[in-house]
Amino acid sequence: MDKRLKQQLDFSLEIDKEKNVFRQTHLSGHGRNENDAEHAWHMAIMAYLLREYANEEVDILKVMMMCLIHDIVEIDAGDTYAYDFEGLKTQKSREDAAKERIFSLLPDDQRKELVALFDEFEEYETPEAKYAHAMDNLQPLILNNSNDGGDWKEHGVSADVVYGRQSKTKLGSEKLYEVADQIIQDHIRKGNLAK
Amino acid sequence: MDKRLKQQLDFSLEIDKEKNVFRQTHLSGHGRNENDAEHAWHMAIMAYLLREYANEEVDILKVMMMCLIHDIVEIDAGDTYAYDFEGLKTQKSREDAAKERIFSLLPDDQRKELVALFDEFEEYETPEAKYAHAMDNLQPLILNNSNDGGDWKEHGVSADVVYGRQSKTKLGSEKLYEVADQIIQDHIRKGNLAK
Repeated sequence: MDKRLKQQLDFSLEIDKEKNVFRQTHLSGHGRNENDAEHAWHMAIMAYLLREYANEEVDILKVMMMCLIHDIVEIDAGDTYAYDFEGLKTQKSREDAAKERIFSLLPDDQRKELVALFDEFEEYETPEAKYAHAMDNLQPLILNNSNDGGDWKEHGVSADVVYGRQSKTKLGSEKLYEVADQIIQDHIRKGNLAK
Repeated sequence: MDKRLKQQLDFSLEIDKEKNVFRQTHLSGHGRNENDAEHAWHMAIMAYLLREYANEEVDILKVMMMCLIHDIVEIDAGDTYAYDFEGLKTQKSREDAAKERIFSLLPDDQRKELVALFDEFEEYETPEAKYAHAMDNLQPLILNNSNDGGDWKEHGVSADVVYGRQSKTKLGSEKLYEVADQIIQDHIRKGNLAK
């Protein structure tokens, strides 16, 4: 087998490990914790179906690839919960080392392409990055909403912290931010989120 | 919330259930069984990275959407193991009913689009369908290969049965079929597959 194909298959096998990285979000039906691969799959389909609500026109293939690969670094760095403020301090250095190791399994052109996509997502500046982040925020929100806000109750999360994250959904989609806002308001009313 | 957006979000929540549909394939590292959502995520990334090996030029966005949605019907119909010949007899009728129910949650235009994509995949005729099927075959093969052919040994599967499925990989990618062939030959030599 030639070197290029072997590198591509080695990377393909390596990313299998993302299925073992579990998140704080629980599956609907009060299910088990979700893993990163499932989360990415879900985001990519939602991105495709909801693209009419992106604030700006987006290259949907690029958005979907961002969704699919944005958590690959967590194979080494682990999941950092959005409201884990200690973990968030070291998140960038842990993820940078992982990015270097894992994407370097690929042939050089594909390594560069995927690292660029990953960085673009992280930088939160292009229409594609903003819309992909809206999916990263909305997908766990609809699961948590279906579970009576159980993930928030478990961690005693307050409404302003949730708004701190979810308000950035607005950068990618004003319309989907309205959905997020309605869900959050509803859970404040029900006492699932501290005011 | 308007009806269209509500339908799109209802569908998005419904497909969460695909994460509870487990396959016969095991994760690398002799891990647990894989579920359909993980499998679809893995296929979509592989499809993107390996597209240079497709026999014909493919619309990669279309291929990736096929990969992402091709198992949604298994939410109702369950997974039918590729070598479960009894289950295979009723697979089509079970999956047709599921297709009708689940995709009908979407607005009509998106229902039609996703059903058309699903049917195109099943019909195995277009370059995109053939290449997406090559991923559906190759992805579990690389996992099973990494696990010393454990999935075959568990079910006592013979080489000709594996070739019956994997030989269709050739329709999507001659080059990737060569990889599959090498893997199968290797496992025959090691005694993991009956001749």
